[in-house]
Order: sequence, then C-alpha cells, then structure tokens
Amino acid sequence: MTGNVPDSPMVDACRRRPVARTPVWIMRQAGRYLPEYRALREKHSLLDICRHAELAAEVALQPIRRFELDAAIVFADILLPLVPMGVELDFVTGKGPVIGNPILGPADVDKLQPFNVEEALEPTLQALATLRSELPAAVAVVGFAGGPFTLASYLIEGGPSRRYLTTKRFMYEHPEAFDRLLSALTGATAEYLLAQAAAGADVLQVFDSWAGCLGPDDYRRYVYPHALRLFREIATSQVPTIHFGVGALGLLELLRDAGGDVIGLDWRVPLDEGWRIVGHDRAVQGNLDPAVLFAPPREIEARVREILSQAGGRPGHIFNLGHGILPSTPPDAVRLVVDTVHEVSAASA
Amino acid sequence: MTGNVPDSPMVDACRRRPVARTPVWIMRQAGRYLPEYRALREKHSLLDICRHAELAAEVALQPIRRFELDAAIVFADILLPLVPMGVELDFVTGKGPVIGNPILGPADVDKLQPFNVEEALEPTLQALATLRSELPAAVAVVGFAGGPFTLASYLIEGGPSRRYLTTKRFMYEHPEAFDRLLSALTGATAEYLLAQAAAGADVLQVFDSWAGCLGPDDYRRYVYPHALRLFREIATSQVPTIHFGVGALGLLELLRDAGGDVIGLDWRVPLDEGWRIVGHDRAVQGNLDPAVLFAPPREIEARVREILSQAGGRPGHIFNLGHGILPSTPPDAVRLVVDTVHEVSAASA
Repeated sequence: MTGNVPDSPMVDACRRRPVARTPVWIMRQAGRYLPEYRALREKHSLLDICRHAELAAEVALQPIRRFELDAAIVFADILLPLVPMGVELDFVTGKGPVIGNPILGPADVDKLQPFNVEEALEPTLQALATLRSELPAAVAVVGFAGGPFTLASYLIEGGPSRRYLTTKRFMYEHPEAFDRLLSALTGATAEYLLAQAAAGADVLQVFDSWAGCLGPDDYRRYVYPHALRLFREIATSQVPTIHFGVGALGLLELLRDAGGDVIGLDWRVPLDEGWRIVGHDRAVQGNLDPAVLFAPPREIEARVREILSQAGGRPGHIFNLGHGILPSTPPDAVRLVVDTVHEVSAASA
Repeated sequence: MTGNVPDSPMVDACRRRPVARTPVWIMRQAGRYLPEYRALREKHSLLDICRHAELAAEVALQPIRRFELDAAIVFADILLPLVPMGVELDFVTGKGPVIGNPILGPADVDKLQPFNVEEALEPTLQALATLRSELPAAVAVVGFAGGPFTLASYLIEGGPSRRYLTTKRFMYEHPEAFDRLLSALTGATAEYLLAQAAAGADVLQVFDSWAGCLGPDDYRRYVYPHALRLFREIATSQVPTIHFGVGALGLLELLRDAGGDVIGLDWRVPLDEGWRIVGHDRAVQGNLDPAVLFAPPREIEARVREILSQAGGRPGHIFNLGHGILPSTPPDAVRLVVDTVHEVSAASA
C-alpha cells in the first residue's frame, strides 16, 4: 500500500507478489502513434506539453482511455531536468533533442547549476499528482528519469548519437570531470525521482537507455558507482524501481547490482534467459521487439504467448516492449498486445 | 598450408594452433583514418577504387606499409555483389550507401538477376591475387562478404538503418519472399567467397554486421538456415572462416552453430566470457572498443593488455577491434595497438 491507494497489479508484480493476470504497459505509450496525441501536438510543442501539467496529464491519459493498460507513465522528457541546470534544450523535428550549449570540456561541467526540483519541474510533479488522483487505484502511475550515462551522453554529444564517440572520448580523457558530471546528474536525478514519488508516482523507472554502448569494464568503472548511489537514494522512497537499458545484455548483472526492484530486458535475449541472468530474486520487465507490432495479428499473438510462456507464470513479470513503441505503430496492435497479455496470463494464473 | 605459401600466424590462430605472438589486424584498416587513403579518395570515388584492381590492392596495402599487421583485407564493399544482381548502388558522402531501387515487396525479390561472379567481381578477385603475390607469406590475405541478413537489410531499407523496421516488417509480412531473398543472397555470397579463396584469400570473413538487431528467435527462424548453408558451402574452400556480428551477444551461440572457424566478438562482452559462450573449440577475434583508440596512450595499452590477459595465451585468439575503426582515429593509436599486441603476447608466449 502507498498512502490510501491499494497496490495495483503493476506494483504487486514489481514486488514479485502473485497477480491475477500479468500487468502490461508500453514504453512511450503516450506518443506519436496515437492520432489524439498527434492532434494535440499540432497545437502544442513537445516542451509546451511537458511544461503544462494539464496537457502532460492529458497526454498520459490518452492511451489509458483506449487500452486496458496497467500503468500510466507521466508525459515528460528525460532531458527536462537539464534545463534548470542551464542547458539550452530544443526539439527539432526529424532530429530529436538538440542541446545548444553541449559540454565540450571539463570546465563546462562546473557550469551546471544547482536548482530547486519542486520549482523547476513543477509541471511534471503536478501532472503526476493529477494522474494519481484521476486514475483508479488499479492503474499504477510511473515516474521516470534518464540514467546518469544517458543524460551525460546527450550533454556531451549535443543530441542523439550512433556510437557515442565524443562521450567515450571525454570519459577516457577527462575521467575526473566525467565523474563530477555523473555525480551532479545523479544528485539531481535522485532528487527529481524522490519528488516524483512524493507527488504520486507508484513506480519509478530509470532509463539508462544508452549505457549499452559501453563494455562491462567501462560501465563498472565510469557509471556503476553513480547508478548504485542513484538507486540507494531513491530506495528511500519505498516506491518500487525499474532499471532499464537497451542493448545491454552484457551489462545485465551490473545493472541489477546497481539497483532496481525490476530489471528491464530488451528483445535481444529470451525473457527466461534474461531473467536467469538477472536472478529470480528480482522482477523483470519486457520484452517484445517493438517491430513485432507491425507483424500480422497472428504473429503478434504468438510472440506475446511465447514471452508469457518464458515467464512461466512466475510472480514478478511486467509485460512491456523491449524498447519504446515506434511512432508509426498501428494502435490496434497495442490493443492486441494488451488484451492478449491479460487473457493468456489470466487463463494460466 | 595453402598452395605454396606457408601458413601465416593469422591462419594458424584461426586453426587454433600455437603462435609466437598474437596476430592482429583491424576491421576497416584500409580507410579514411589514413591520410594516404584520403589523398587517393580525392582523386577516386569509393566505387572507382573497388572497380580497379590496382587501386583496390594499393589501398589494402597502405596500412600494411605503416603497421606490422598480420593480415591485409581486400578493399571492397559488402554491397558490391548486389550491383550485378541489378541493384542501383551509390555512395553518398555523409549518408553512406544508397540503393536506388530498394526491394519494396515480394515481386522485387524475383527481379534479382543471376550473374557470373568471376566476371562481375573481377576487380576484387584480381586485387586479392595481387595482394597474395605482393605480400610476404606471414601476412594473411582476408577476403570478405556481407552476411545474408545484413545484405537483405540494405536492400530493403535502401541504405543504413537505425532500427531495421522496414526489414523486420518485410520479414514478418512476407516470410516466404524474405526466405527467397536470403536464399538468393546466400547463393551469390557463397560463390563470391569461394572465388575469393580461389583468387588468393587465406581467410574469409562474413560480416553479418546488423543481425544483432534481431532477437534469437527471429535469427533462428529467418536467418540461421541461410547462414548455415553459407558456411557449409564456403567450408569446401578449406580456407578458415570468420563469422562476425555487432551487438550480437545474444546470438553468439547461434552464429557459432551456423559456422565459422573464428567467431568475431564486439566489445560489449569481456573476451574471456565471450569465448566461454562460443566454446573453446572455436577461435575468437576481437574485441577492443574502437572508441578506445581515442583514449590516452596509457589507457590504450592497458586495454590491449587486459584483452590479451582475458585470452590467457590460449591458442586461437586474433586481436582486432570489436567493430570497424572510426574514420577520425589517430593512426598512431593503431600503431600502439598493433605493437602492444605483438610485444605483450610475444613476452608471455
């Protein structure tokens, strides 16, 4: 129980408690694949939506109205907390996030400003409160933030990257400055996530999405201590936590050791094998390839069944994609996934 | 022994025979990071170089003149064999390969034309012969081709891709046509590689670089039978083979089962762990992160030593990067890697 709200199936699954049916939600479920989202985006920019609590809550509610999802994720961007640190952030169509003043050298790290989370990220926190008050108790509200490496990579690359060469170069050439950077990001992120839990989030997910570009030795040396600190600090919220990376099969044990009640798996590992690597004393989330949602319905259904069968009815599985849903996904495919997860898992529970 | 040439350390390592020092070469070692290559590229396009045996051989020899590499790889592009099949291929600066007539549906698969490998790819075969005759026996000549999934992905996407959604969609929607496509590509590739061995290649590497975007089930179902056939057919050349994918940690056992005397590892797995997964009855190649070549010399040296220590002096390790060398790499870093590999492994042999 969190406050007055009875635990949802999603929270129960995070805690590895038995559930009547496997909870399911979808990374980026509030987004471009929904016509109602695109309609709203014609009137408002991405940053506009993030900065107005009522719009952010509305967008987060859109997929909940359509599908029987077990969680709503607050609508925000992992780069938002960088703005009050002094980072010039914009979103350019077809290009993604662009940072006007990227970190070019060690001196830039020390220009990052401390900020008051409650003030600077008020719209997101307010949106979480709205979601928690408007949604039934059975639907968990997920708060989230970017992981320290992922945030650092955007700051150093100035935007998305294919190989993260500039980031790695900075890391190798300026290990102390890189460490200070990750420290600053970790501190701010921990505060931000704790504020999200206080505002109403029932679950907190850390997207260290791009950590998978690192070999295990680099992750252990440059990122792990910060990830460990982050999960220790947010554990004080008592809210279950999810730790997720993409293409991070070689880092699974390290991600688990750093923290997270739930470890997110991408589709490059069968769920049963991934869970074995993580260990059955943790919950897992995943792991349908987002591309499968473009397959014929029979194929989608077979893949969902396969993942549920790999989970084997063991308590502690949250169904999700292995990465964010793709913008051109047909909404009907989402419905099919959600309904199949519920039906098949309820029948075998 | 291949013909009159005594086996090189590289071939010995492929065969898991003991060597005096660990052989080392670098994927894309003939390329943009070398000023002499860039000078040549000012006068000739990429396709020009590939289509003139003397230029292709010259470019392949450039890194051999600079560094004590144990192998020269013929200069070619994995997409070249598509051209005589009727594919309109161009290379656009900053964009990479662009295919003018991508495969949009099942009917396009059947438009691919059979061709005579010896005629159509004569410059590459001639360059291999030149390399074999000009290089000392101690330097192995590596021939190569793209793997069936990787070639198919370029054909379907029309160029490089981040998520391979169009390819996967085609694969799910048109499994028979996808199978026909991979069959055609596999047949042509096998012929091409056999011709390369006949022309002088001492080793053959298959770059199924993008297969790592697939989960193991998809690889097993859609790609594995073709990879298996490819390696069975090229095994008749008696030349050792290397099987390589990027971000393919979850596919290592499948890549190994499909074939390859040597399995290429990227940097996302420690070499010892990767070798354990592959099994010690195969050789392995790898696996320094290409980004490490931008690190300070002390760090580069430490990383090379670490990989050699993970290899543990076991016969059957070929040192390489975990992916192609990056265009902006300082050539001195390559020298440091090559020399460190030789010195450290000779000292501990």
